[in-house]
Amino acid sequence: MNGKFGPPRPAIPPEEDDLRKLLPRRPVRMRDPQSIEIVDRHHVTFDEVLQLRSGGILAGFTLAYEAYGKLNDDHSNAILICHALSGDSHLAGYYTDDPEEKPGWWHEAVGPGKMFDTNRFFVICSNVIGGCRGSTGPSSIAPDGKPYALRFPVVTVDDMVKAQTYLMDYLGIKTLFAVAGGSMGGMQALQWAVDYPDRVRNTLFIASTPVSSSQNIAFNEIGRQAIYADPYWNHGDYYDTPERPDAGLAVARMVGHITYMSEQSLEAKFGRRLQEKTELTYSFETDFAVESYLHYQGFKFTERFDANSYLYITKALDYYNVADGHGSIENALKKTRCNYLVISFSSDWLYTRPQALELVRPLENLGLPVEYHHVEASFGHDSFLVEVETMTEIVGGYLNRQWQVSHDEAITDDQRNHANVDLHN
Amino acid sequence: MNGKFGPPRPAIPPEEDDLRKLLPRRPVRMRDPQSIEIVDRHHVTFDEVLQLRSGGILAGFTLAYEAYGKLNDDHSNAILICHALSGDSHLAGYYTDDPEEKPGWWHEAVGPGKMFDTNRFFVICSNVIGGCRGSTGPSSIAPDGKPYALRFPVVTVDDMVKAQTYLMDYLGIKTLFAVAGGSMGGMQALQWAVDYPDRVRNTLFIASTPVSSSQNIAFNEIGRQAIYADPYWNHGDYYDTPERPDAGLAVARMVGHITYMSEQSLEAKFGRRLQEKTELTYSFETDFAVESYLHYQGFKFTERFDANSYLYITKALDYYNVADGHGSIENALKKTRCNYLVISFSSDWLYTRPQALELVRPLENLGLPVEYHHVEASFGHDSFLVEVETMTEIVGGYLNRQWQVSHDEAITDDQRNHANVDLHN
Repeated sequence: MNGKFGPPRPAIPPEEDDLRKLLPRRPVRMRDPQSIEIVDRHHVTFDEVLQLRSGGILAGFTLAYEAYGKLNDDHSNAILICHALSGDSHLAGYYTDDPEEKPGWWHEAVGPGKMFDTNRFFVICSNVIGGCRGSTGPSSIAPDGKPYALRFPVVTVDDMVKAQTYLMDYLGIKTLFAVAGGSMGGMQALQWAVDYPDRVRNTLFIASTPVSSSQNIAFNEIGRQAIYADPYWNHGDYYDTPERPDAGLAVARMVGHITYMSEQSLEAKFGRRLQEKTELTYSFETDFAVESYLHYQGFKFTERFDANSYLYITKALDYYNVADGHGSIENALKKTRCNYLVISFSSDWLYTRPQALELVRPLENLGLPVEYHHVEASFGHDSFLVEVETMTEIVGGYLNRQWQVSHDEAITDDQRNHANVDLHN
Repeated sequence: MNGKFGPPRPAIPPEEDDLRKLLPRRPVRMRDPQSIEIVDRHHVTFDEVLQLRSGGILAGFTLAYEAYGKLNDDHSNAILICHALSGDSHLAGYYTDDPEEKPGWWHEAVGPGKMFDTNRFFVICSNVIGGCRGSTGPSSIAPDGKPYALRFPVVTVDDMVKAQTYLMDYLGIKTLFAVAGGSMGGMQALQWAVDYPDRVRNTLFIASTPVSSSQNIAFNEIGRQAIYADPYWNHGDYYDTPERPDAGLAVARMVGHITYMSEQSLEAKFGRRLQEKTELTYSFETDFAVESYLHYQGFKFTERFDANSYLYITKALDYYNVADGHGSIENALKKTRCNYLVISFSSDWLYTRPQALELVRPLENLGLPVEYHHVEASFGHDSFLVEVETMTEIVGGYLNRQWQVSHDEAITDDQRNHANVDLHN
């Protein structure tokens, strides 16, 4: 893969079969009454000009999305789930009946009876603009017929959200019962509440931060520097060249991956266990299982992700500060009209409890309805994906209660209307 | 610097003058009765074959070292200070009278009346084998007249220590009053206690771990992958080429640098402060000061460090497990005969309190003399270099007490001998 410039890299790519057993266990594919089965990825193209925060524009854009469950008659049961840095619209289910196929990225969370219960809710997930999984991004073809590459405008979290409003309009959804997301998904959920207060009833802000910290920026910048340093990156112009900046992107992903796990979970999963050997080699071979795991994660990522999209999306993360344009976080929240569920995890050192509290405290100061859970969990930032049982209890429970309240309100409203009608007849 | 393969990198190198103000403040150069002044770097070459843990050998090797203070008549006042990953023998003082010159890496700790008091102690520091600052390492010329590069054998912490014993023999020091070090220096200090129990009276183990964790290995492997991914690395053969793997080494250093600072210290130092601008640019320019700081640290490092040495030394770190060859940490410690001072720092997330306790607990179980301090400090791993006042109290106090005890013992021994002589006359 890098033959022109140097010898084969010592570690990338690794032997996939040997490494597969190191990966987090995915649910076994089986017919399961709670499981979303075959789904399609949809695309919708908007001709409108999308005005971006940077001052730039997108003259038309496409969003890839998927949907699960059924939109009810009054279109009041829609939940938008927003994905994180490396996610996409494939939230749950499978594209084929290949028993080897892995399901969507939050498959465990979405389905009949699951935490996002598709018996009740119509669940939507769309790929962000700037991404590379079906929505318009730097790898997309620009109006001049060539890939945008770095000509793509820098997008921010509020731009991503603005693009999603077009999709909601297209689907006929005026008000979302909830917007939910973990990590960068939480930022989008919060931005929905701030920018479109009339369109969101509940905001679920999970393992996220209302403002990226210095350390958050530092880790993202290292990922970007790894990509810049790859000569195949070629200042973003690699789409019509035979080589891609895979080595740089893999290093960026490895850096990211460490921040998603806790020291504790790395220790429990790998410790100092050796990879396919019984003795240390005292060489630059891959001795430790944790090294193989990182190589695998880095290498696999290059098969499905675009290096320029990685640059754009990490920039959106760095720029994220819900206070921007409002003077303070509290000011930004003042006009929001939704209920909030905020969740942080004890071992998450990427988006920490103090960062979650940067949202919770102003909400409390404003007297806005917020339910906050700090969950004891060992899996670091990934806990929000891994702690399915706890999350089902908290998220599923919250949604049930909110649905009940809104349903009761609706009945009450209905009865009141009937009463009113009766009175006036 | 990377012109052949691509456009100038967007961020490296930055404008040095603009960035200098971001750096940690160094002590102002002035005549100070407590300051070590001009020092020389010495070299000593040993013709002996150094047998290494890997099974490899070094057929002769050079050590660069510096020394401060005066060796006393009975050679009982020597302290060896061991350096960390990126350190060298230049512990304190200056090489020239250039007022711009920065002093050695632990200048604040070594000098008359300082924590390592050169009025009392003879303080030595040598560059590790595998390094690139005067001691034999991969950039050194092999017996065949060409640089070793990857032909250099993999060295471990106990190999580094074994090499240091030659230097102690050369200097006429049979027993060290103390071996001290932070980070990888702490590993070396501990290894001295285990491998040469008769030659060490006190072991000072600071911000370190008796065994590298899975997360420690993961961060080091990412640094190595960044170097491997640089085409100029060329499988280690770059010494006779015009270009060096500076981009990869800079990324490796940036990754390391984040692990040396705490989230708290990054936030306090940089937060979301912008670099030389008042508004976000919404571009791939360097908007945030923390980004500039990382670029500067990465770039400066390439001026003084060899990429292959970075590979070798991080490997030594990863291989470090004091239990190796002993079955358990407790077994490894059983035959040690020194007193221990162990220090960890509350915000150090590279080598944590639980890792320090992995040494302290077995020592306590064995009934060996250990004094343990967990210091509240906000600077992360770097706290051991930055918290000079607290460290002077703890380390200076400890050394004073131990010196007093050993001095009293000596007097008592002396008196006893005299008494015995008297009795027998």
